Amino acid sequence: MSKDRLVVAVVGATGAVGREMLSVLEGRDFPATEVIALASARSAGTTVPFAGAELKVKELTEDSFEGVDIALFSAGGSTSEKFAPIAAKAGCVVVDNSSAWRMDDRCPLVVPEVNPEALEKHNGIIANPNCSTIQMLVALKPLHDTAKIKRVVVSTYQAVSGSGQKAITELETQTRQLFNMQQPEAEVYPYQIAFNALPQIDVFMDNDYTKEEMKMVNETVKIFNDSSVKVTATCVRIPVFYGHSESVNIETAQKITPAEARAILTQAPGVTVLDNPGEKIYPMAIDAAGQDDTFVGRIREDESIENGLNMWIVADNIRKGAALNTVQIAEELIKRDLLGVKDTTVFD
Amino acid sequence: MSKDRLVVAVVGATGAVGREMLSVLEGRDFPATEVIALASARSAGTTVPFAGAELKVKELTEDSFEGVDIALFSAGGSTSEKFAPIAAKAGCVVVDNSSAWRMDDRCPLVVPEVNPEALEKHNGIIANPNCSTIQMLVALKPLHDTAKIKRVVVSTYQAVSGSGQKAITELETQTRQLFNMQQPEAEVYPYQIAFNALPQIDVFMDNDYTKEEMKMVNETVKIFNDSSVKVTATCVRIPVFYGHSESVNIETAQKITPAEARAILTQAPGVTVLDNPGEKIYPMAIDAAGQDDTFVGRIREDESIENGLNMWIVADNIRKGAALNTVQIAEELIKRDLLGVKDTTVFD
Repeated sequence: MSKDRLVVAVVGATGAVGREMLSVLEGRDFPATEVIALASARSAGTTVPFAGAELKVKELTEDSFEGVDIALFSAGGSTSEKFAPIAAKAGCVVVDNSSAWRMDDRCPLVVPEVNPEALEKHNGIIANPNCSTIQMLVALKPLHDTAKIKRVVVSTYQAVSGSGQKAITELETQTRQLFNMQQPEAEVYPYQIAFNALPQIDVFMDNDYTKEEMKMVNETVKIFNDSSVKVTATCVRIPVFYGHSESVNIETAQKITPAEARAILTQAPGVTVLDNPGEKIYPMAIDAAGQDDTFVGRIREDESIENGLNMWIVADNIRKGAALNTVQIAEELIKRDLLGVKDTTVFD
Repeated sequence: MSKDRLVVAVVGATGAVGREMLSVLEGRDFPATEVIALASARSAGTTVPFAGAELKVKELTEDSFEGVDIALFSAGGSTSEKFAPIAAKAGCVVVDNSSAWRMDDRCPLVVPEVNPEALEKHNGIIANPNCSTIQMLVALKPLHDTAKIKRVVVSTYQAVSGSGQKAITELETQTRQLFNMQQPEAEVYPYQIAFNALPQIDVFMDNDYTKEEMKMVNETVKIFNDSSVKVTATCVRIPVFYGHSESVNIETAQKITPAEARAILTQAPGVTVLDNPGEKIYPMAIDAAGQDDTFVGRIREDESIENGLNMWIVADNIRKGAALNTVQIAEELIKRDLLGVKDTTVFD
């Protein structure tokens, strides 16, 4: 499909994910006739690179969305809470990368390879899932369709880029400090991340799980639209710049062999299977960085239960985990002719 | 107990674990009347620090064990295979840190906090378990005794020191190379370990698991002396120098709440509970390094099954995972008056 006029706004254009969104829009030849960069007053007036030129960043205001068809938000939860309904009210469809709207019943939570049909009944705000959830479900959906997943036990190995540009700098700075016999300073994270593993991502909830862990539990049920899928998660930050890795154990209702799983995943959209132990071929964060696909390997039978598999799932948390998935949702909206907001009172 | 004469040999005294063994012997006031440092011909003649002085390293030969009461081996599998039976034949009790004898029915596989009674029927060679297994079982044994563990799903976050001094240097060198825009060189590991996660520790087996993963599966059954305990493991190397971390999910036959588990583990030998999410208190590799205890935290109910718990277990892989556990076995042998080899023909 092509439109004479398709205006896209990137909200939070100066952040790590916002910049990646612009890069993805450009790289995928997204059919926008105009791209607008929006950010807080602090960043307004600066520029961000886009399509070989510089886009001037405009201040995000309540009037920013007039005449805008799609707004891609990556500006934090409170900004999304305030401005996404304003955009939807103006007839602009929002794809929001924060956690603000994910569990709201009025908002579809979408991974295009997994549940694009959920977009059909959108009310103007569509939520992009958590990075750790997206890559896990891209890999698990085809297996769920084939063998019905009953339970998932996942442990993550997450990169610092998931916490933004300041965290990337913090890992670099702490590493240099340690190599120069200086005391490492922790500001973004509660403790030293360099040469350490932090078993805390986001804040703790009342049940002693972190918010990140509960996102994986709850978002999986919503995206699969299947409350029978049980997930338990342990989310850990490790000293990696880009690329989240996940050790995923699944129990299925029907038997599925590693060979069958490999065959299914080889055909699956958005998945690349890298699984040849004899040749030491398996997914790694440093290889996934900058790539669009979700990489799956180390697929093997879990002999501790009747129908179990272990696997290792890796993806670029900033691309598939955030910017790319958001743009793919926008593409799906265009393909399905779902732009515009039918009822602009839903978020009143 | 004290003896007029107790001669201890450390085999592989110049390696990372050998040096730590000497340090642990000294630090714990081990009742040796003489400590002998043994190593290959290549290292013979050099010295290693012990008790404020330097021990001259002697060459390991078939005659090295005459008059030696206890030999602590950390010199690799092939050295253990050859020399441990020679030592036992000479009446010297071997505590071996390699994987050579672990699954041999003639050899007890011992974690002193878990199964010290297995020492009673030793035949001269006692095996020290894999580092990842030791710390997991120190934490799980008290829970197994209380609630009977049916299944364990473990994902590890292992430090490079587990691969020896060369791997420590490799992580350091690669980090410097990357910070100086140089291509990192991988020699110890198949791929870059700096700022990466490698889902391979040790070699791959026929079932596509790594040897490290199968050690956790098989050694757990032997140490617990309970073939009903099912373990499935994913072992991953991360860019940490000292301290293995483990994300451990257990299913138990009887219900056990997180509060009960914390209370049990607080009383358990060799365990320190660090578990106060509200105060951001949980175990971390950088804190465990140099410590004797196994640290347990992030204990929480796994709501995906009826009787499940998640936890995060961290220990110094060189101390409790190797040198300390070996010395503790030697202490237990002395305490139980189990020195000497009754039947010196068992390994003929």
